[in-house]
Amino acid sequence: MKVGSQHFRTVWYDDAGLNVIDQRLLPHSFQILRLATHRDTALAISDMTVRGAGAIGATGGFGMAQGFLEAPDATFESYIQAAAACLRATRPTAQNLFYAIDRVLRAGYQGLAQSRAQARAYALAEAQRVADDDARACERIGELGEALIPEGARVSTHCNAGWLAFVDWGSALSPLYQAVRRGKKVSVLVDETRPRSQGARLTAWELRQEGIPFHLVTDGVSASLMARGEVDLVIVGSDRIARNGDVANKIGTYPAALAAREAGIPFYVAAPSSTIDPHCPSGQNIPIEERSGDEVLWVEGRDPSGTLTRVFIAPEGTSARNPAFDVTPAALIRGIITEFGVVPASEEGIGVVLEKKRLAMQQASIR
Amino acid sequence: MKVGSQHFRTVWYDDAGLNVIDQRLLPHSFQILRLATHRDTALAISDMTVRGAGAIGATGGFGMAQGFLEAPDATFESYIQAAAACLRATRPTAQNLFYAIDRVLRAGYQGLAQSRAQARAYALAEAQRVADDDARACERIGELGEALIPEGARVSTHCNAGWLAFVDWGSALSPLYQAVRRGKKVSVLVDETRPRSQGARLTAWELRQEGIPFHLVTDGVSASLMARGEVDLVIVGSDRIARNGDVANKIGTYPAALAAREAGIPFYVAAPSSTIDPHCPSGQNIPIEERSGDEVLWVEGRDPSGTLTRVFIAPEGTSARNPAFDVTPAALIRGIITEFGVVPASEEGIGVVLEKKRLAMQQASIR
Repeated sequence: MKVGSQHFRTVWYDDAGLNVIDQRLLPHSFQILRLATHRDTALAISDMTVRGAGAIGATGGFGMAQGFLEAPDATFESYIQAAAACLRATRPTAQNLFYAIDRVLRAGYQGLAQSRAQARAYALAEAQRVADDDARACERIGELGEALIPEGARVSTHCNAGWLAFVDWGSALSPLYQAVRRGKKVSVLVDETRPRSQGARLTAWELRQEGIPFHLVTDGVSASLMARGEVDLVIVGSDRIARNGDVANKIGTYPAALAAREAGIPFYVAAPSSTIDPHCPSGQNIPIEERSGDEVLWVEGRDPSGTLTRVFIAPEGTSARNPAFDVTPAALIRGIITEFGVVPASEEGIGVVLEKKRLAMQQASIR
Repeated sequence: MKVGSQHFRTVWYDDAGLNVIDQRLLPHSFQILRLATHRDTALAISDMTVRGAGAIGATGGFGMAQGFLEAPDATFESYIQAAAACLRATRPTAQNLFYAIDRVLRAGYQGLAQSRAQARAYALAEAQRVADDDARACERIGELGEALIPEGARVSTHCNAGWLAFVDWGSALSPLYQAVRRGKKVSVLVDETRPRSQGARLTAWELRQEGIPFHLVTDGVSASLMARGEVDLVIVGSDRIARNGDVANKIGTYPAALAAREAGIPFYVAAPSSTIDPHCPSGQNIPIEERSGDEVLWVEGRDPSGTLTRVFIAPEGTSARNPAFDVTPAALIRGIITEFGVVPASEEGIGVVLEKKRLAMQQASIR
């Protein structure tokens, strides 16, 4: 997607190495960060320089490729295993991370049957394919999801599942970008998404870049606007989808889904198939990251003089809990918008069906 | 309630005039503000120096009494009518404000049958009674509500409906204070309550003063903790209760009520009968205040050096919507804890029943 007049992906590998947009600085400044080693890459994921399911996945894939490229001949395999462990330990919830690491590992080991050089080449090529697949899947999600958005629709979304959260296009916002490019008028209700305010910082920034009208609201607002008939549909992203269609997404998604059902408003999840965890039977089995309470207690922004600073918002000594995701049961979801089509989340074995489609496609692309 | 070792009410009238705790400065500093005229008092309500249903009511009542005390003999009645209009225009949702102004007006006019001096005396005495009634009702709410809190209960609450929101004791927190004084162990899950963070600023401060353990969470969290079995009951306050039992309260209350129903957890509203609007048939008729988007976009707190400042959290030029309240339908509420008992909110005509009880009590106290 464009930033000003230039096209950007959120993560890309070039002759100089791995580059990512530093999302911690948005919307206040736009900066590219170069990640020299797989350890730098792991840190960029864990400290949320890069966040969002698809972006974490692609970055993790490139990080795994960095592991192959860095691995000394003498300790090649143990270095690679350690790199994989280091990358896997960065964040627990987003399935795309594990999916990407696994794909790059598998490709690298296929190459290793010939030589370590081949292993390195295969790993890097596969990391690039993971990123390209993500961008293509998200573009397709946009085309398929666009059909669900009526002219003049008022769409509510939570967190950031735009192009910053993926390699390009995004999941939840991709249908909106496609709708606007096809001349539809839409407006967006953006949940600020405390504690890290990805809605206020990132979704608001993306929508402004694309000139799509929106209002920012605090996280308690959208439910009552749904009840008052001021929202036509909800689209959110996902960090992991269980085999039964239960969806883990940013904390605050579940109450929005409850409110949508109560108001009779369709609630869609948009996600590439790489978000589906075929080994996870239900939402109860999805590991939910609990992050530092400091993220709740300190809020970052620009002070009246324009300086970036942070403020402490509670009495000193306050203890906060900070679960980063919640689980929305499949029964609350009208459909999951994937690159293979819009599938009802409550259909039995949705995860299994999509996993088969994904594997078939993946094998076709390997041949 | 106590601040350190000293007993405070949120609003009181003494020889020097009307005094209120400046809630805009909490939890960062504790200061008393003197309000010299009814216009100062009106401003203190509209700029949220004083907030919370009961505190707004008592302050509005004293403001109305100030109107009587200030009114020049030559333009006595027109001055009083203008003062009433000025106070009524401060904030639209909390019923307690209109209730208190009406009571003081009625008492003042009863006195006026004898003399202007009597009108002034009656008005001030009635304003004091409004405040005393609020404190007594809230204490009784605590005694009655305490029975609903099991030993070891994990209680979720939204916004601040503690003693700062009333004259003393509070509504939603009063049962917790009583439970703890009777030796029960409880813990509280405090929603931060964006945009003005009354949970993070005021409820957290009150609970620390009382030594009650709590965790602060962002507004999207409590729903999933209810689903995960980590909450035993929810108690919130109210700004206005319609005749059919629908409840207006701080934005974000409604999704918490949906989540409580889904998890099978009791959801209670605690409110003195002065919060019931006997002329309001249902929640759809409750006027919902829409405040400035700046409250969403700017967040106040202490910077790392300890200086109170505010930070802008979104891209420049972002537009925010800021409805301050939402409506929770009676069907989602297990019971309304009033000074007359715990009444099922969905019982037909609950507002009418309570209004009758309240009027009977009021007439008894006037005789």
